[in-house]
Amino acid sequence: MARNKYPEETVNLILDVAFRLFMEKGYEHTSIQDIIDHLGGLSKGAIYHHFKSKEDILYAVMGRMTAESNLRLKEICDRTDLNGKEKLKTLFRLSLDRPVMEDVFTVSPNVYNNPRFLSSFLHEAVEESAPDYILPIIRQGIADGSITTEYPEQLAQLISLLANIWINPIIFEDSREETYRKFVIFDQVLKGLGLNIVDQEMLERMCDLSSIHQNNN
Amino acid sequence: MARNKYPEETVNLILDVAFRLFMEKGYEHTSIQDIIDHLGGLSKGAIYHHFKSKEDILYAVMGRMTAESNLRLKEICDRTDLNGKEKLKTLFRLSLDRPVMEDVFTVSPNVYNNPRFLSSFLHEAVEESAPDYILPIIRQGIADGSITTEYPEQLAQLISLLANIWINPIIFEDSREETYRKFVIFDQVLKGLGLNIVDQEMLERMCDLSSIHQNNN
Repeated sequence: MARNKYPEETVNLILDVAFRLFMEKGYEHTSIQDIIDHLGGLSKGAIYHHFKSKEDILYAVMGRMTAESNLRLKEICDRTDLNGKEKLKTLFRLSLDRPVMEDVFTVSPNVYNNPRFLSSFLHEAVEESAPDYILPIIRQGIADGSITTEYPEQLAQLISLLANIWINPIIFEDSREETYRKFVIFDQVLKGLGLNIVDQEMLERMCDLSSIHQNNN
Repeated sequence: MARNKYPEETVNLILDVAFRLFMEKGYEHTSIQDIIDHLGGLSKGAIYHHFKSKEDILYAVMGRMTAESNLRLKEICDRTDLNGKEKLKTLFRLSLDRPVMEDVFTVSPNVYNNPRFLSSFLHEAVEESAPDYILPIIRQGIADGSITTEYPEQLAQLISLLANIWINPIIFEDSREETYRKFVIFDQVLKGLGLNIVDQEMLERMCDLSSIHQNNN
Protein backbone atom coordinates (compact mmCIF):
# COMPACT_ATOMS: atom_id res chain seq x y z
CA MET A 1 0.00 0.00 0.00
CA ALA A 2 1.35 3.41 -0.94
CA ARG A 3 1.55 6.11 1.67
CA ASN A 4 -1.87 7.58 2.15
CA LYS A 5 -2.40 11.06 0.79
CA TYR A 6 -4.97 11.71 3.50
CA PRO A 7 -3.24 11.85 6.90
CA GLU A 8 -6.49 11.41 8.85
CA GLU A 9 -7.15 8.15 7.03
CA THR A 10 -3.61 6.98 7.73
CA VAL A 11 -4.01 7.75 11.42
CA ASN A 12 -7.34 5.97 11.58
CA LEU A 13 -5.86 2.97 9.79
CA ILE A 14 -2.98 2.79 12.26
CA LEU A 15 -5.41 3.05 15.19
CA ASP A 16 -7.73 0.40 13.72
CA VAL A 17 -4.89 -2.06 13.37
CA ALA A 18 -3.35 -1.18 16.75
CA PHE A 19 -6.72 -1.52 18.50
CA ARG A 20 -7.31 -4.96 16.97
CA LEU A 21 -3.82 -6.17 17.93
CA PHE A 22 -4.05 -4.74 21.48
CA MET A 23 -7.37 -6.58 21.88
CA GLU A 24 -6.04 -9.86 20.46
CA LYS A 25 -2.51 -10.01 21.87
CA GLY A 26 -2.60 -7.43 24.62
CA TYR A 27 -0.73 -4.09 24.63
CA GLU A 28 2.46 -5.48 26.19
CA HIS A 29 2.75 -8.23 23.59
CA THR A 30 2.17 -5.98 20.60
CA SER A 31 5.23 -4.29 19.08
CA ILE A 32 5.39 -1.34 16.71
CA GLN A 33 6.69 -3.88 14.16
CA ASP A 34 3.53 -5.99 14.63
CA ILE A 35 1.45 -2.95 13.85
CA ILE A 36 3.55 -2.18 10.74
CA ASP A 37 3.29 -5.80 9.57
CA HIS A 38 -0.50 -5.44 9.53
CA LEU A 39 -0.54 -2.13 7.69
CA GLY A 40 -0.03 -3.58 4.23
CA GLY A 41 3.18 -1.79 3.31
CA LEU A 42 2.99 1.42 5.30
CA SER A 43 6.54 2.29 6.35
CA LYS A 44 7.92 2.66 9.86
CA GLY A 45 8.61 6.30 8.96
CA ALA A 46 4.94 6.85 8.17
CA ILE A 47 3.95 5.60 11.62
CA TYR A 48 6.59 7.70 13.39
CA HIS A 49 5.42 10.69 11.39
CA HIS A 50 2.15 10.47 13.36
CA PHE A 51 3.15 8.81 16.64
CA LYS A 52 6.31 9.10 18.71
CA SER A 53 5.94 5.72 20.39
CA LYS A 54 3.72 2.72 21.04
CA GLU A 55 2.53 4.57 24.16
CA ASP A 56 1.34 7.45 22.01
CA ILE A 57 -0.59 5.02 19.83
CA LEU A 58 -2.26 3.62 22.93
CA TYR A 59 -3.27 7.10 24.13
CA ALA A 60 -4.78 7.79 20.71
CA VAL A 61 -6.57 4.41 20.63
CA MET A 62 -8.03 5.02 24.09
CA GLY A 63 -8.91 8.63 23.22
CA ARG A 64 -10.77 7.56 20.10
CA MET A 65 -12.57 4.81 22.04
CA THR A 66 -13.94 7.17 24.67
CA ALA A 67 -14.33 10.41 22.66
CA GLU A 68 -17.90 9.78 21.60
CA SER A 69 -19.17 8.51 24.94
CA ASN A 70 -17.36 11.37 26.73
CA LEU A 71 -19.45 13.82 24.73
CA ARG A 72 -22.57 12.10 25.96
CA LEU A 73 -21.31 12.23 29.56
CA LYS A 74 -20.87 15.99 29.25
CA GLU A 75 -24.46 16.34 28.11
CA ILE A 76 -25.62 15.20 31.56
CA CYS A 77 -24.82 18.74 32.77
CA ASP A 78 -27.54 20.19 30.56
CA ARG A 79 -30.36 17.94 31.71
CA THR A 80 -33.17 19.79 33.44
CA ASP A 81 -34.93 16.75 34.95
CA LEU A 82 -32.21 16.07 37.56
CA ASN A 83 -30.72 18.00 40.47
CA GLY A 84 -26.94 18.17 41.01
CA LYS A 85 -26.69 15.09 43.21
CA GLU A 86 -28.79 13.05 40.79
CA LYS A 87 -26.60 14.23 37.92
CA LEU A 88 -23.47 13.09 39.76
CA LYS A 89 -25.03 9.68 40.24
CA THR A 90 -26.04 9.57 36.58
CA LEU A 91 -22.50 10.56 35.55
CA PHE A 92 -21.08 7.58 37.46
CA ARG A 93 -23.67 5.15 36.22
CA LEU A 94 -23.40 6.10 32.55
CA SER A 95 -19.61 6.28 32.77
CA LEU A 96 -19.46 2.68 34.00
CA ASP A 97 -22.25 1.42 31.75
CA ARG A 98 -20.90 2.55 28.38
CA PRO A 99 -20.29 -0.56 26.29
CA VAL A 100 -16.83 0.74 25.31
CA MET A 101 -15.64 0.10 28.88
CA GLU A 102 -15.24 -3.63 28.20
CA ASP A 103 -12.80 -2.77 25.41
CA VAL A 104 -11.02 -0.13 27.48
CA PHE A 105 -10.51 -2.62 30.30
CA THR A 106 -9.33 -5.22 27.80
CA VAL A 107 -6.70 -3.20 25.94
CA SER A 108 -5.41 -1.25 28.94
CA PRO A 109 -1.93 -2.41 29.95
CA ASN A 110 -0.37 -2.44 33.41
CA VAL A 111 -0.49 1.16 34.59
CA TYR A 112 0.81 0.98 38.14
CA ASN A 113 4.31 -0.06 37.05
CA ASN A 114 4.58 2.35 34.12
CA PRO A 115 5.39 5.85 35.46
CA ARG A 116 4.38 7.57 32.22
CA PHE A 117 0.95 5.87 32.12
CA LEU A 118 0.39 6.39 35.84
CA SER A 119 1.24 10.06 35.54
CA SER A 120 -0.97 10.43 32.48
CA PHE A 121 -4.01 8.89 34.22
CA LEU A 122 -3.45 11.08 37.26
CA HIS A 123 -3.13 14.25 35.20
CA GLU A 124 -6.31 13.39 33.32
CA ALA A 125 -8.22 12.84 36.59
CA VAL A 126 -7.03 16.20 37.96
CA GLU A 127 -7.06 18.33 34.81
CA GLU A 128 -10.02 16.91 32.87
CA SER A 129 -12.41 14.71 34.83
CA ALA A 130 -12.49 16.92 37.92
CA PRO A 131 -12.89 20.40 36.35
CA ASP A 132 -14.76 19.44 33.14
CA TYR A 133 -17.18 16.74 34.32
CA ILE A 134 -17.55 16.69 38.11
CA LEU A 135 -17.08 20.34 39.14
CA PRO A 136 -19.88 21.86 36.98
CA ILE A 137 -22.30 19.31 38.44
CA ILE A 138 -21.18 20.02 42.02
CA ARG A 139 -21.74 23.73 41.41
CA GLN A 140 -25.25 23.00 40.18
CA GLY A 141 -25.82 20.83 43.26
CA ILE A 142 -24.72 23.65 45.55
CA ALA A 143 -27.08 26.05 43.74
CA ASP A 144 -30.07 23.71 43.96
CA GLY A 145 -29.29 22.63 47.53
CA SER A 146 -28.71 18.94 46.78
CA ILE A 147 -24.93 19.10 47.49
CA THR A 148 -23.27 20.90 50.40
CA THR A 149 -19.62 21.88 50.34
CA GLU A 150 -17.56 24.99 50.95
CA TYR A 151 -14.86 23.92 48.51
CA PRO A 152 -16.29 22.57 45.24
CA GLU A 153 -12.93 22.46 43.36
CA GLN A 154 -11.27 20.35 46.02
CA LEU A 155 -14.31 18.10 46.43
CA ALA A 156 -14.39 17.52 42.65
CA GLN A 157 -10.70 16.64 42.65
CA LEU A 158 -11.12 14.22 45.56
CA ILE A 159 -14.04 12.42 43.91
CA SER A 160 -12.19 12.25 40.59
CA LEU A 161 -9.04 10.82 42.16
CA LEU A 162 -10.94 8.20 44.13
CA ALA A 163 -13.20 7.18 41.23
CA ASN A 164 -10.69 7.38 38.37
CA ILE A 165 -7.52 6.32 40.15
CA TRP A 166 -8.04 4.62 43.49
CA ILE A 167 -10.97 2.30 42.77
CA ASN A 168 -9.97 1.89 39.11
CA PRO A 169 -8.85 -1.74 38.60
CA ILE A 170 -6.85 -0.67 35.52
CA ILE A 171 -4.49 1.34 37.69
CA PHE A 172 -3.94 -0.88 40.71
CA GLU A 173 -4.46 -4.31 39.12
CA ASP A 174 -6.92 -5.06 41.91
CA SER A 175 -8.64 -8.41 42.13
CA ARG A 176 -12.42 -8.56 42.03
CA GLU A 177 -12.48 -8.83 45.84
CA GLU A 178 -10.12 -5.87 46.34
CA THR A 179 -12.21 -3.80 43.92
CA TYR A 180 -15.32 -4.72 45.90
CA ARG A 181 -13.73 -3.64 49.19
CA LYS A 182 -12.43 -0.36 47.81
CA PHE A 183 -15.83 0.41 46.34
CA VAL A 184 -17.54 -0.16 49.71
CA ILE A 185 -15.13 2.28 51.38
CA PHE A 186 -15.57 4.73 48.48
CA ASP A 187 -19.31 4.60 49.16
CA GLN A 188 -18.72 5.27 52.88
CA VAL A 189 -16.54 8.28 52.02
CA LEU A 190 -19.16 9.68 49.65
CA LYS A 191 -21.95 9.17 52.19
CA GLY A 192 -19.82 10.94 54.83
CA LEU A 193 -19.79 13.89 52.42
CA GLY A 194 -23.57 13.71 52.03
CA LEU A 195 -23.35 12.03 48.63
CA ASN A 196 -25.49 8.92 48.39
CA ILE A 197 -24.68 8.40 44.71
CA VAL A 198 -23.40 4.87 44.13
CA ASP A 199 -25.41 1.68 44.31
CA GLN A 200 -25.18 -2.09 44.21
CA GLU A 201 -25.50 -2.21 40.42
CA MET A 202 -22.49 0.08 39.95
CA LEU A 203 -20.53 -1.99 42.46
CA GLU A 204 -21.20 -5.15 40.47
CA ARG A 205 -20.38 -3.47 37.19
CA MET A 206 -17.05 -2.27 38.58
CA CYS A 207 -16.24 -5.77 39.84
CA ASP A 208 -17.11 -7.23 36.41
CA LEU A 209 -14.80 -4.72 34.71
CA SER A 210 -12.06 -5.64 37.16
CA SER A 211 -12.46 -9.30 36.17
CA ILE A 212 -12.29 -8.43 32.46
CA HIS A 213 -9.05 -6.53 33.04
CA GLN A 214 -7.54 -9.32 35.15
CA ASN A 215 -8.35 -11.93 32.52
CA ASN A 216 -6.49 -9.92 29.89
CA ASN A 217 -3.34 -9.04 31.82
CA MET B 1 40.84 13.82 46.69
CA ALA B 2 41.62 10.21 45.83
CA ARG B 3 38.79 7.78 45.48
CA ASN B 4 37.65 6.78 48.91
CA LYS B 5 38.49 3.27 50.00
CA TYR B 6 35.39 3.24 52.17
CA PRO B 7 32.32 3.28 49.91
CA GLU B 8 29.95 4.26 52.72
CA GLU B 9 31.97 7.39 53.38
CA THR B 10 31.97 8.24 49.68
CA VAL B 11 28.20 7.85 49.52
CA ASN B 12 27.72 9.99 52.62
CA LEU B 13 30.02 12.66 51.19
CA ILE B 14 28.07 12.73 47.92
CA LEU B 15 24.79 13.00 49.84
CA ASP B 16 26.15 15.75 52.12
CA VAL B 17 27.21 17.85 49.15
CA ALA B 18 24.04 17.12 47.16
CA PHE B 19 21.82 17.96 50.13
CA ARG B 20 23.57 21.30 50.67
CA LEU B 21 23.32 22.21 46.97
CA PHE B 22 19.66 21.14 46.73
CA MET B 23 18.93 23.34 49.76
CA GLU B 24 20.89 26.32 48.40
CA LYS B 25 20.10 26.22 44.68
CA GLY B 26 17.09 23.92 44.53
CA TYR B 27 17.04 20.44 43.01
CA GLU B 28 16.16 21.61 39.49
CA HIS B 29 19.06 24.06 39.37
CA THR B 30 21.66 21.62 40.66
CA SER B 31 23.46 19.48 38.06
CA ILE B 32 25.49 16.33 38.59
CA GLN B 33 28.49 18.48 37.51
CA ASP B 34 27.73 20.95 40.33
CA ILE B 35 27.85 18.08 42.80
CA ILE B 36 31.13 16.81 41.34
CA ASP B 37 32.62 20.31 41.48
CA HIS B 38 32.04 20.37 45.23
CA LEU B 39 33.46 16.92 45.89
CA GLY B 40 37.11 17.97 45.86
CA GLY B 41 38.36 15.78 43.04
CA LEU B 42 36.01 12.81 43.14
CA SER B 43 35.45 11.65 39.56
CA LYS B 44 32.19 11.47 37.62
CA GLY B 45 32.80 7.71 37.42
CA ALA B 46 32.92 7.49 41.21
CA ILE B 47 29.50 9.13 41.49
CA TYR B 48 27.97 6.95 38.78
CA HIS B 49 29.42 3.92 40.54
CA HIS B 50 26.99 4.67 43.38
CA PHE B 51 24.10 6.51 41.70
CA LYS B 52 22.55 6.08 38.27
CA SER B 53 21.21 9.63 38.04
CA LYS B 54 20.55 12.89 39.86
CA GLU B 55 17.10 11.48 40.64
CA ASP B 56 18.70 8.54 42.43
CA ILE B 57 20.80 10.95 44.48
CA LEU B 58 17.63 12.81 45.46
CA TYR B 59 15.94 9.57 46.57
CA ALA B 60 18.99 8.75 48.69
CA VAL B 61 19.13 12.26 50.16
CA MET B 62 15.43 12.13 51.05
CA GLY B 63 15.77 8.57 52.39
CA ARG B 64 18.63 9.56 54.66
CA MET B 65 16.74 12.64 55.87
CA THR B 66 13.69 10.69 56.97
CA ALA B 67 15.25 7.35 57.99
CA GLU B 68 15.79 8.24 61.65
CA SER B 69 12.44 9.94 62.19
CA ASN B 70 10.68 7.09 60.35
CA LEU B 71 12.04 4.69 62.97
CA ARG B 72 10.49 6.85 65.67
CA LEU B 73 7.18 6.91 63.81
CA LYS B 74 7.17 3.12 63.77
CA GLU B 75 7.65 3.03 67.54
CA ILE B 76 4.20 4.59 67.98
CA CYS B 77 2.78 1.12 67.29
CA ASP B 78 4.35 -0.24 70.47
CA ARG B 79 3.01 2.40 72.85
CA THR B 80 0.64 1.03 75.48
CA ASP B 81 -0.78 4.37 76.65
CA LEU B 82 -2.84 4.97 73.49
CA ASN B 83 -5.66 3.17 71.70
CA GLY B 84 -5.59 2.66 67.92
CA LYS B 85 -7.40 5.85 67.02
CA GLU B 86 -5.14 7.90 69.31
CA LYS B 87 -2.10 6.23 67.75
CA LEU B 88 -3.28 7.19 64.27
CA LYS B 89 -3.65 10.79 65.41
CA THR B 90 -0.20 10.68 67.02
CA LEU B 91 1.26 9.22 63.82
CA PHE B 92 -0.05 12.18 61.82
CA ARG B 93 0.99 14.77 64.37
CA LEU B 94 4.54 13.46 64.82
CA SER B 95 4.91 12.90 61.09
CA LEU B 96 4.11 16.56 60.40
CA ASP B 97 6.00 17.92 63.42
CA ARG B 98 9.40 16.34 62.76
CA PRO B 99 11.89 19.17 62.22
CA VAL B 100 13.26 17.41 59.12
CA MET B 101 10.02 18.24 57.28
CA GLU B 102 11.15 21.84 56.69
CA ASP B 103 14.18 20.48 54.84
CA VAL B 104 12.14 17.85 52.96
CA PHE B 105 9.73 20.53 51.77
CA THR B 106 12.65 22.76 50.81
CA VAL B 107 14.67 20.29 48.72
CA SER B 108 11.73 18.51 47.12
CA PRO B 109 11.43 19.38 43.43
CA ASN B 110 8.29 19.56 41.30
CA VAL B 111 6.73 16.12 41.55
CA TYR B 112 3.47 16.49 39.63
CA ASN B 113 5.22 17.06 36.29
CA ASN B 114 7.87 14.38 36.74
CA PRO B 115 6.34 10.96 36.03
CA ARG B 116 9.16 9.08 37.74
CA PHE B 117 8.88 11.09 40.96
CA LEU B 118 5.10 10.97 40.91
CA SER B 119 5.14 7.22 40.46
CA SER B 120 7.75 6.82 43.19
CA PHE B 121 5.72 8.82 45.74
CA LEU B 122 2.60 6.85 44.84
CA HIS B 123 4.34 3.50 45.18
CA GLU B 124 5.76 4.52 48.56
CA ALA B 125 2.30 5.55 49.81
CA VAL B 126 0.80 2.22 48.70
CA GLU B 127 3.68 -0.16 49.46
CA GLU B 128 5.24 1.39 52.58
CA SER B 129 3.16 4.00 54.40
CA ALA B 130 -0.12 2.08 54.14
CA PRO B 131 1.01 -1.45 55.10
CA ASP B 132 3.95 -0.59 57.41
CA TYR B 133 2.69 2.44 59.35
CA ILE B 134 -1.08 2.86 59.06
CA LEU B 135 -2.39 -0.71 58.75
CA PRO B 136 -0.88 -2.10 62.00
CA ILE B 137 -2.44 0.81 63.90
CA ILE B 138 -5.85 0.30 62.25
CA ARG B 139 -5.73 -3.38 63.23
CA GLN B 140 -5.02 -2.39 66.84
CA GLY B 141 -7.90 0.10 66.67
CA ILE B 142 -10.26 -2.62 65.45
CA ALA B 143 -9.13 -4.90 68.28
CA ASP B 144 -9.57 -2.23 71.00
CA GLY B 145 -12.84 -0.93 69.52
CA SER B 146 -11.63 2.59 68.73
CA ILE B 147 -11.73 2.07 64.92
CA THR B 148 -14.51 0.39 62.96
CA THR B 149 -13.96 -1.00 59.48
CA GLU B 150 -14.55 -4.23 57.63
CA TYR B 151 -11.60 -3.67 55.30
CA PRO B 152 -8.50 -2.48 57.13
CA GLU B 153 -6.10 -2.87 54.15
CA GLN B 154 -8.21 -0.72 51.86
CA LEU B 155 -8.87 1.87 54.58
CA ALA B 156 -5.12 2.11 55.26
CA GLN B 157 -4.44 2.59 51.56
CA LEU B 158 -7.10 5.28 51.24
CA ILE B 159 -5.76 7.23 54.24
CA SER B 160 -2.20 6.91 53.00
CA LEU B 161 -3.08 8.14 49.50
CA LEU B 162 -5.05 11.11 50.80
CA ALA B 163 -2.46 12.10 53.42
CA ASN B 164 0.72 11.38 51.46
CA ILE B 165 -0.41 12.25 47.95
CA TRP B 166 -3.58 14.30 47.75
CA ILE B 167 -3.11 16.83 50.54
CA ASN B 168 0.69 16.81 50.14
CA PRO B 169 1.75 20.23 48.81
CA ILE B 170 4.99 18.70 47.47
CA ILE B 171 3.02 16.65 44.95
CA PHE B 172 0.38 19.06 43.70
CA GLU B 173 2.23 22.39 44.19
CA ASP B 174 -0.84 23.62 46.07
CA SER B 175 -0.97 27.15 47.43
CA ARG B 176 -1.46 27.67 51.15
CA GLU B 177 -5.17 28.29 50.52
CA GLU B 178 -5.59 25.15 48.38
CA THR B 179 -3.80 23.10 51.02
CA TYR B 180 -6.14 24.52 53.66
CA ARG B 181 -9.22 23.58 51.63
CA LYS B 182 -8.00 20.07 50.88
CA PHE B 183 -7.18 19.53 54.54
CA VAL B 184 -10.70 20.57 55.58
CA ILE B 185 -12.21 18.05 53.15
CA PHE B 186 -9.69 15.41 54.28
CA ASP B 187 -10.94 15.99 57.85
CA GLN B 188 -14.57 15.58 56.68
CA VAL B 189 -13.69 12.31 54.96
CA LEU B 190 -11.94 10.99 58.06
CA LYS B 191 -14.83 12.01 60.32
CA GLY B 192 -17.25 10.27 57.94
CA LEU B 193 -15.20 7.13 58.58
CA GLY B 194 -15.41 7.68 62.35
CA LEU B 195 -11.85 9.01 62.54
CA ASN B 196 -11.65 12.29 64.42
CA ILE B 197 -7.85 12.41 64.20
CA VAL B 198 -6.70 15.71 62.73
CA ASP B 199 -6.87 19.10 64.41
CA GLN B 200 -6.34 22.82 63.86
CA GLU B 201 -2.67 22.62 64.79
CA MET B 202 -1.96 19.98 62.13
CA LEU B 203 -3.89 22.04 59.59
CA GLU B 204 -1.72 25.08 60.31
CA ARG B 205 1.46 23.03 60.21
CA MET B 206 0.50 21.61 56.81
CA CYS B 207 -0.22 25.10 55.49
CA ASP B 208 3.16 26.33 56.81
CA LEU B 209 4.93 23.45 55.06
CA SER B 210 3.06 24.30 51.88
CA SER B 211 4.36 27.89 52.12
CA ILE B 212 7.94 26.67 52.66
CA HIS B 213 7.68 24.50 49.54
CA GLN B 214 6.16 27.29 47.47
CA ASN B 215 8.88 29.74 48.48
CA ASN B 216 11.55 27.33 47.29
CA ASN B 217 10.05 26.28 43.96
